[in-house]
Amino acid sequence: MTTPKTSLTGIKPTATPHLGNYLGAIRPALRLAEQYRTIYFIADYHALTTLRDPQALQGYIYDVAATWLACGLDPERTIFFRQSQVIEVFELAWILACLFGTGHLLRGHSYKDAIAKGQKDPNAGITFYPILMAADILLYDTHVVPVGKDQKQHLEVARDLAGRFNHHFGPTLVVPEPLIGEAPLVPGTDGTKMSKSKGNTIPLFAPPKQLRKLIMSIKTGSEGLDDPKDPDRSTVWQLCRQLAPEAAGPMAEKLRRGVGYGWGHAKQDFFEALDAELGPMRERFEALRGDEAQLDETLAAGAAKARPIAQATMARVREAVGIRRPPCPPKETLRLKKSGGGG
Amino acid sequence: MTTPKTSLTGIKPTATPHLGNYLGAIRPALRLAEQYRTIYFIADYHALTTLRDPQALQGYIYDVAATWLACGLDPERTIFFRQSQVIEVFELAWILACLFGTGHLLRGHSYKDAIAKGQKDPNAGITFYPILMAADILLYDTHVVPVGKDQKQHLEVARDLAGRFNHHFGPTLVVPEPLIGEAPLVPGTDGTKMSKSKGNTIPLFAPPKQLRKLIMSIKTGSEGLDDPKDPDRSTVWQLCRQLAPEAAGPMAEKLRRGVGYGWGHAKQDFFEALDAELGPMRERFEALRGDEAQLDETLAAGAAKARPIAQATMARVREAVGIRRPPCPPKETLRLKKSGGGG
Repeated sequence: MTTPKTSLTGIKPTATPHLGNYLGAIRPALRLAEQYRTIYFIADYHALTTLRDPQALQGYIYDVAATWLACGLDPERTIFFRQSQVIEVFELAWILACLFGTGHLLRGHSYKDAIAKGQKDPNAGITFYPILMAADILLYDTHVVPVGKDQKQHLEVARDLAGRFNHHFGPTLVVPEPLIGEAPLVPGTDGTKMSKSKGNTIPLFAPPKQLRKLIMSIKTGSEGLDDPKDPDRSTVWQLCRQLAPEAAGPMAEKLRRGVGYGWGHAKQDFFEALDAELGPMRERFEALRGDEAQLDETLAAGAAKARPIAQATMARVREAVGIRRPPCPPKETLRLKKSGGGG
Repeated sequence: MTTPKTSLTGIKPTATPHLGNYLGAIRPALRLAEQYRTIYFIADYHALTTLRDPQALQGYIYDVAATWLACGLDPERTIFFRQSQVIEVFELAWILACLFGTGHLLRGHSYKDAIAKGQKDPNAGITFYPILMAADILLYDTHVVPVGKDQKQHLEVARDLAGRFNHHFGPTLVVPEPLIGEAPLVPGTDGTKMSKSKGNTIPLFAPPKQLRKLIMSIKTGSEGLDDPKDPDRSTVWQLCRQLAPEAAGPMAEKLRRGVGYGWGHAKQDFFEALDAELGPMRERFEALRGDEAQLDETLAAGAAKARPIAQATMARVREAVGIRRPPCPPKETLRLKKSGGGG
């Protein structure tokens, strides 16, 4: 058996996860553990580009940590940690920045998106973002990065920078490959793609009462109680099919037949099936979320596994660029390894 | 007696120090130790913006370390270390970047200078340089930074960023003040300002033979052996006055009188006085430069003094922005400090 390849997933803690995140990101990312050495990190320092509310940030960090653990992330089998606990990533980002044209950054997705959204002068963190993201990836000898189609450019910067580094300083960094997933279309309550910015989301771990209310607010057609209805064109059924597939078959049949089965019935069936599906996860989430010290401990244990990988990469990188960083060993050790080179 | 304020001096290892560096930077910076808690660091990672030669970089680092120590830097009384050995500076730089407009960077001295020098697309390290420099300063609770008049903008960024940080997140960072020194005019062999880029430098620790040759190449007037000569308008005397003041009085007198005292005599007198002045320092330099392991040890010991200051600053900064980084303590400790907050 060969050593499994490493996959890396970054999680930005800037909102409470919703059903779209679960189907589009969390569930597929967790499945990677079957095939890869999986590394997941909470990109808490990335969040600073847009978030200047310390309490909100802390809350989101614990929210996403508890969410991913509740959804099945196994911190024993995988590596799960906070970006801020392995600060070598910023050192690597600086080195990579010295190899990357400023013009590239200004033409990059991160800066351009901010301008497109009406920001007059995006902060330097936003502009620099693709380089930090590249450092996140390259620091851990990542082989594959799961990306949606719209995120390919992020990975292109990492691939480009690994190539440049290896070209200038000799083979040092692993050049990562994209792992493009089939992004499921997850509709929100208004039928368009579920997205925080549209206000059409259903939180993954909403309490049952709120969950039912949101499901009842899903837009439907105007067919009457006894009219036949097309499940394929219905948001309720689309969500049910992806989130509670066992209930989807019977629901489709009843909708098509129509008689005595209106949209309200379908919503109630979906709510019950979803609540049964999410209930146990929600309970785990609530228990995890209620113990921040335990979450800190879990993430710190993950960082303790991530750090040696990062430090091994940085030892190679420092050697390659001419920065040897002796790790302050006792006098005896240093005297033994008298260094060569010089100018 | 009150606690002395902290002054910080960065040293870029991109060339072998010359007499201009000695008079303009090294000597005045070392005098600060009389009045301040002095911190000196070798900005090895700054050098990467322009240097892609690992062997040259390593050589320059040891060159400047040995030079400053030979010139009288006392590693016991001061803090002397390599930037790369306290990597918290990159973490702080990221946080500061999120508070600084990209447009500011593009209008900054670093990016503009590179463009003015004909670079089509300066690398992101160059553009980002003022932010890393600010982090260097703010990380160590620096009160004063010695700067030349042309470097005031560097410090302005640090002052601006400290102010912004404190405004957004509460009082956290010390706002540094410039300490504008009277920059001496040090002429090179051609009479214009001594500067590496002009090729008119005299290395500080050139061997006597090379030193004499370079002094003999200094441009002079065309007065004859017996003509009266104006010391004030002569490069030889200007250098002598600053570097070997005891020889300058007699030399001025002989030049003014003229009779039997030509430029060659003045150069020989200057060489002898300078060699007597620099000789003992050069010997110390050569002994220091020959033992890289010992230099590593000295700089590592300095880093061990710098790191706790940096870590104390970062603890305040992380708390302020909402990134609490528990330092992976044993389980017991973590359980005790169950954290509040949440979202």
